[in-house]
This record gives sequence, structure tokens and C-alpha cells, in this order.
Amino acid sequence: MTSMGTRTVDVSDCTPHHSWDPGLAPVAVVVDGDEVHATLREITDDQLSPDATSADLLALDLSRLYPLLGPVEVEGAQPGDTLEVEILSASHRGWGFTAVLPGMGLLQEDFPDPYLHIWDLGEPSNAVARFGDIAAVALRPFPGTVGVCPDVAAPAPIMPPGHFGGNIDCRDVVAGSRLFLPVQVPGAMLSIGDGHSAMGDGEVCVTAIESPLDVALRLRLHKDRSIPGPQLLVRGPLHPGTEAGEWYVTMGVGPDLMAAAKDATRALVDWTASRYAITPVEAYVLASVTAHLRITEIVDAPNWVVSAYLPLGIFSSRSAG
Amino acid sequence: MTSMGTRTVDVSDCTPHHSWDPGLAPVAVVVDGDEVHATLREITDDQLSPDATSADLLALDLSRLYPLLGPVEVEGAQPGDTLEVEILSASHRGWGFTAVLPGMGLLQEDFPDPYLHIWDLGEPSNAVARFGDIAAVALRPFPGTVGVCPDVAAPAPIMPPGHFGGNIDCRDVVAGSRLFLPVQVPGAMLSIGDGHSAMGDGEVCVTAIESPLDVALRLRLHKDRSIPGPQLLVRGPLHPGTEAGEWYVTMGVGPDLMAAAKDATRALVDWTASRYAITPVEAYVLASVTAHLRITEIVDAPNWVVSAYLPLGIFSSRSAG
Repeated sequence: MTSMGTRTVDVSDCTPHHSWDPGLAPVAVVVDGDEVHATLREITDDQLSPDATSADLLALDLSRLYPLLGPVEVEGAQPGDTLEVEILSASHRGWGFTAVLPGMGLLQEDFPDPYLHIWDLGEPSNAVARFGDIAAVALRPFPGTVGVCPDVAAPAPIMPPGHFGGNIDCRDVVAGSRLFLPVQVPGAMLSIGDGHSAMGDGEVCVTAIESPLDVALRLRLHKDRSIPGPQLLVRGPLHPGTEAGEWYVTMGVGPDLMAAAKDATRALVDWTASRYAITPVEAYVLASVTAHLRITEIVDAPNWVVSAYLPLGIFSSRSAG
Repeated sequence: MTSMGTRTVDVSDCTPHHSWDPGLAPVAVVVDGDEVHATLREITDDQLSPDATSADLLALDLSRLYPLLGPVEVEGAQPGDTLEVEILSASHRGWGFTAVLPGMGLLQEDFPDPYLHIWDLGEPSNAVARFGDIAAVALRPFPGTVGVCPDVAAPAPIMPPGHFGGNIDCRDVVAGSRLFLPVQVPGAMLSIGDGHSAMGDGEVCVTAIESPLDVALRLRLHKDRSIPGPQLLVRGPLHPGTEAGEWYVTMGVGPDLMAAAKDATRALVDWTASRYAITPVEAYVLASVTAHLRITEIVDAPNWVVSAYLPLGIFSSRSAG
């Protein structure tokens, strides 16, 4: 390794880790400018396949969720620095799934049963996936989990994100984007995982189109910059193909943003299932990968408005009414 | 009046009301299909003018805020019905303001002092307003407050919205949109006000580009449809001119959506003020009219991510770094 930052390391074959742990030895050491390549496993660590069914969800070994690759040490990185992760490329490997898992998701009370939808994504260059005869979903592959290691005293679970990034599940960490993360421990100790091929803001049913993903990243170390949490530079359009069409919007209103988000999502599921030939759980899954939760207003005390935005351009035919 | 729904009523000259009150007599009675036209006063009820300064904010008579026009009775409307409000047109009248008001707004602790920015909006057909030499903001005029009367026992304040709609401050209730509201009292009793010429999702500083507005609406009564809260059909693009450019995104992460929204907004204000030649309060005002709060993920318990999205296409020159 030189200090010129032109090396590429591939971390695909390292043993995945399942917690944030500052005590883990780095699987590679890189410098400012180096590239990191990886094939990310999907979230269950290969426990599901394109032939899986809903019954397989109940048999999952949950200790194997979130198989992260890394950590990658960035030479010279210190707490207070900013690590830039440029996504050079991200492409799916032909399949994915969206699951409803009991006890998880925004509407877990409404959908207590396991449900699994398998997506055929086609060739890696394919940019659209069919949802039966109903809809076509634009694919925008991205890693759901990209984090520097938090400064924790004991190994911490992967699922909750933090100011260090991690499982932020931001749909816009796509190829061409530059994600900025605040370094928490010496060496930054970057890990990645949780491949997604499409997701709506919110990820309401608890999963995106979960899929194995090939990613290439370039790391940059900014010694002169400190940030309080993750930041991102992304090039639009953020909603390719559907931005200029019609959107249907449902609103939740009240003093609690979480309750308002549930109300908005519930109204959208009801509306979609009543207008198109799909079941409520199918509408919930479709919302998770295509609809977006937005905070419409957060200042008209004591009531706030959260809205769910569904681009109608995804549908194969116009709404019935 | 006939039952054919071809009449137009203009309610501009009615005496504004300042509370939601089922006891108010209607200023007009219409039927399904009729049009309602109005010139909406800005939020302070003409207490501010294009010559106003920050000092004038402290002298405002707050009892005169939210001058609503109406109520308009819709013949035959009953609780459980849905009232559709189609926005036929909405145009500004040449000026507007954005204010920071002490004790209000998402970052009220950070910005305790009154601040007023006056906007020159030009001719009513003008679609862009300059923010000094720094930025150009796309104008998308809309009424911030559109509501059927809630079924309240005593007159209720206008500021908080509800499932009946009202002060929902939804930036997409623009010309061409169809807003659906659940009727709460016999006759629906629709009122409108709070003209806005541009706003970001969230309206973080507590005001949009507040401006007098000429609006034309068509009302439709749906007897066969019940909805739990406001719903909207809007034609894109939702971000004309800036969707395809770059976006800068700041994130707040944690177990409380409100705190995460504050963190994201604070980070965006800091970033904007550090990258462009504007003060923090100017960055706060600009965020309120151009940046959008989105719920990035709401399922990775116990931590959620709220992001503030700023379209960089508004700026006259590229960021310094």
C-alpha cells in the first residue's frame, strides 16, 4: 500500500460480523483515495433464496441477520474527522425479496403474519422490476448499512442506526452519491452490508427489495471537517420516471409524528388495495418499496402532518376511480 | 342557484373569521360542482406590507392571525361524506414575506429573535423569486389552510390542523391538485386562507413565502366515499427545475422523530451558512421555503432517521466545497 490512494481492496471473502465492535481487527487497511469493492449478501446471510416461501421466515436464525463486511481501517482517521464514502457503482444480482416480519415494521399491529414477496430483477443492468401485472418499480440499488464503528464499550447490535451512520437505510446512497460520516474511533473502521435494490422513504414494512449487491466505493478522509451526523450529496432525479406523473398522497395529523406516520401509511395501504387488484399486505409491501414518508408541516403546534406519497406512474393502468 | 353545479361564488369580501366554529352562518351556499373564488389575505390580515421590518413583527395583533374566508356550505353534505376541493388556479399578487417569530418554529431555541424577509415576487405569472444574489426559488402558490369545519363544542384555534384538514400547510395543494377532506358537520362548511407562494416540506421556520393569493376552487361532493383524513392527488413534477440537479442531505438519527427533525434541520442550516455567503437565520428562512423533511427510515427500532433535503439547483453558484 502506498499513500497515493490508488489501491483497490476486495472484502467480499472476509467473515461477516454481526455487531458494531471497536475490538474487531480490520480486514483491510486503506488510505485516503483507495477503493473498496464488495459483494454484499442479503440481510439474512443467505438463509433465503429465490425459492423461499413465507414459512421460511419463521425458521430464520435471527443471530445471522445483518452480515456486515469489514471493518476497513482508514489510515490516519481520528475521531472528529469526516469519512467520505463515494458510491462508484452498485448493482443487483438478479433477485431480491420483501418480507413482512412479525413484530416489526410500522404497521406491525395490522400485519401480524409473516409474508414474503420474491422479486425477479433480471440482468444486473435491468433498471425496472415487475410487481405482478400491477406495477413496475424503478431499481436504484444501494447499501442500506454503511457505517464507521461507533465508540461503544460493548458490541452493539447492527439494526439501529446512529450518528455514526450504520443502518440508516437511506434510499439515496446510490451510485454517484457521496456519503459523509463522522469518524468515532481511530481508523474509522468502516463496515457495509444490507443490499437494497429499491426502497421508499420510511421502509414502512421493515424491508426494502433486499438483495445481494455488488458495490464499489471510494474512501476519502477529510481531516479539516467535522459533522454531527450523516450527510449526503446525491444527484437527481430521485424518482426517475415517475416524478412528472401523478402522485397520491395520504395524510396523518396529530401531536405525535410516529402516530401520524402510521395513520398516513394505513390510509395509503387502504387506498391502494381498494383501487388496484391487490391485497392489503401486497399494498403494504408495495408502499415499502415505492412510497415516501414526508413531514408536511412540523410547526403548527400542537399538531403535525406526516404524508405518504405514492407515485402513480408505477402502475400499469390508471386507478379505477 | 341550481343543482347543476355551474355557479361561481366569490367570497373575497366576506368578514374573515379567526376560529373553527360550527355556529358560524355560511357566507354562501353551493352545490356539487360549483366554483368558489377568493382573494386570500396573507396570514397577518394585512398587518404587514412590503415595507415592513423585523420590528413590526413584535407589534402584531396575534388575534388577527389566520383570517379565513367562509364558511361555504355545500348543500347535502353530511358527516362521513368526502368533499373534493380542486384547485383550479392560484396566483400571487407580487409580494410575500417569510418571518421568524419568537417562540415558534422548529429551531425556536436557536433563533429567539424576530426576523423578517420580504420577497419581491414580480408579476402574478412570475414563477421564480430571487433570494438576494444567492438563490432563485420556484414559486408554487397554494392555500396553506383549506378545511371543512371540525365538529367542535367551542370555537377552536385555526393554527393546529386536524383530520378535517385546515392548516395542513401541504406544499402540493397547487393549481391542478385535488384535495379530499372528510366532512365533519352538515354542510361541510369549508373555509380557506393562509396564502403561500413557496414552501418546503416541514415549513421549518414557521412561515412559508406568506402572500396574498387569488384562488379559484371547484367543489365536488362524494356521498359514496369516506376517508380518515386529508388525501391529495397532485401532478408532478413536485420540484420543477431542481429535481434533476444535485441535492444536499443532512440527517438526524435517534429514538424521537421530533428531535431527529431538529438535528437534521440544524445541520442543514449550519452547512448552508458555511457554504454560501448567508447568515444562519437567512439559511433557516431559505430552508423553510426550499428544503424538505423526509422520514428516511422509521422501522429500525429503536432509532429513526429524519433527513432534510436541499435542492442545490436553487443556488446561483456552486458550493465552495
